[in-house]
Amino acid sequence: MPKQISGRNQLPGRIIALNFGDILAEVTVQVGDQVVDAVITRRSAENLKLAVGDPVTMLIKATEVMVIKDVSDD
Amino acid sequence: MPKQISGRNQLPGRIIALNFGDILAEVTVQVGDQVVDAVITRRSAENLKLAVGDPVTMLIKATEVMVIKDVSDD
Amino acid sequence: MPKQISGRNQLPGRIIALNFGDILAEVTVQVGDQVVDAVITRRSAENLKLAVGDPVTMLIKATEVMVIKDVSDD
Amino acid sequence: MPKQISGRNQLPGRIIALNFGDILAEVTVQVGDQVVDAVITRRSAENLKLAVGDPVTMLIKATEVMVIKDVSDD
Amino acid sequence: MPKQISGRNQLPGRIIALNFGDILAEVTVQVGDQVVDAVITRRSAENLKLAVGDPVTMLIKATEVMVIKDVSDD
Amino acid sequence: MPKQISGRNQLPGRIIALNFGDILAEVTVQVGDQVVDAVITRRSAENLKLAVGDPVTMLIKATEVMVIKDVSDD
Repeated sequence: MPKQISGRNQLPGRIIALNFGDILAEVTVQVGDQVVDAVITRRSAENLKLAVGDPVTMLIKATEVMVIKDVSDD
Repeated sequence: MPKQISGRNQLPGRIIALNFGDILAEVTVQVGDQVVDAVITRRSAENLKLAVGDPVTMLIKATEVMVIKDVSDD
Repeated sequence: MPKQISGRNQLPGRIIALNFGDILAEVTVQVGDQVVDAVITRRSAENLKLAVGDPVTMLIKATEVMVIKDVSDD
Repeated sequence: MPKQISGRNQLPGRIIALNFGDILAEVTVQVGDQVVDAVITRRSAENLKLAVGDPVTMLIKATEVMVIKDVSDD
Repeated sequence: MPKQISGRNQLPGRIIALNFGDILAEVTVQVGDQVVDAVITRRSAENLKLAVGDPVTMLIKATEVMVIKDVSDD
Repeated sequence: MPKQISGRNQLPGRIIALNFGDILAEVTVQVGDQVVDAVITRRSAENLKLAVGDPVTMLIKATEVMVIKDVSDD
């Protein structure tokens, strides 16, 4: 049975780098023209058997996103 | 003097929808082929004078991103 | 194809209350003996067609959890 | 004087595992039938003198919780 | 019995403004020379009986904080 | 062109300690009378060339802040 997740931002991409630390792992993903970085627990990365080249989806809650605006000074 | 921010994920795009609530505002941004949603305070949205069509950058800390993997059952 | 999510904390329960605001919705879920509250976007709650009584899973990233310890003063 | 905290989700349990990294520590807690994982700074874990067996409370802000729904395809 | 919380950043101050929305409340606090804003659930604000003038402590997990640096262009 | 960021809490200070782990870095900043800790990726700390003594601004989204109230028992 498929799952649906409330997190509004679900960005599909492919893992281009993986970096394992003692407790965490850094997962770098190519999403279209952008690169998106996730820091998750090492244990989760191992449970998911993440590997470079894997297609994955980056999940981000809308309340976690800030907005930057360039402001001209006129 | 320009500012540099530690948040690793900075996705440039353009506002396609704005929805003002009592305390928060929802900012919907086209980022390449993807749509990214931010929920920020209404006050911040007003201070930044956000408007549909504005070029903005979505800022997301790497520790806030989860990874979803499709798992085949073989 | 089933999905696997890196978020370490996935607590199964049943929705006991739903409260819709202008931008957000509050989802209250019975998880064993505990009650867990989520605030998500109203739009996500509508997309998922959440209703009281629905079985759901609460998803929480380990980096979002704090620990409280009772400290005796001896 | 007791303190009251705004974080809506306060789940009582007992530490079943502790894993110290260079900067962070992973705290695994049995909460009823569920296991909940927290990643906090190593320094906080040391200040609180956390140890396996300690009764603790897991503190989670409602805005950090996502909801997953199983979706049948009929 | 006093509680100790793992959240590293605990900034004491006094509430200078309160703004109640449908689901959330915005709590504005003077912390030394700075003003710090929290958005919490309305229900939590009511349970804590928050009022302008109350001494409170703002609690922020270290993993939620970003760093901005001014960069000169030499 | 200067940037404006939606994050409501921007606390100026000076770095008093830096601690590099394998994936993350801990940045400790004096903000007025308070000390504020940030945990960011090691890579971001290196990109920003952070060093003890640097003036920086701590950026915190209002939705990440909790409120603690002392409660007398009368």
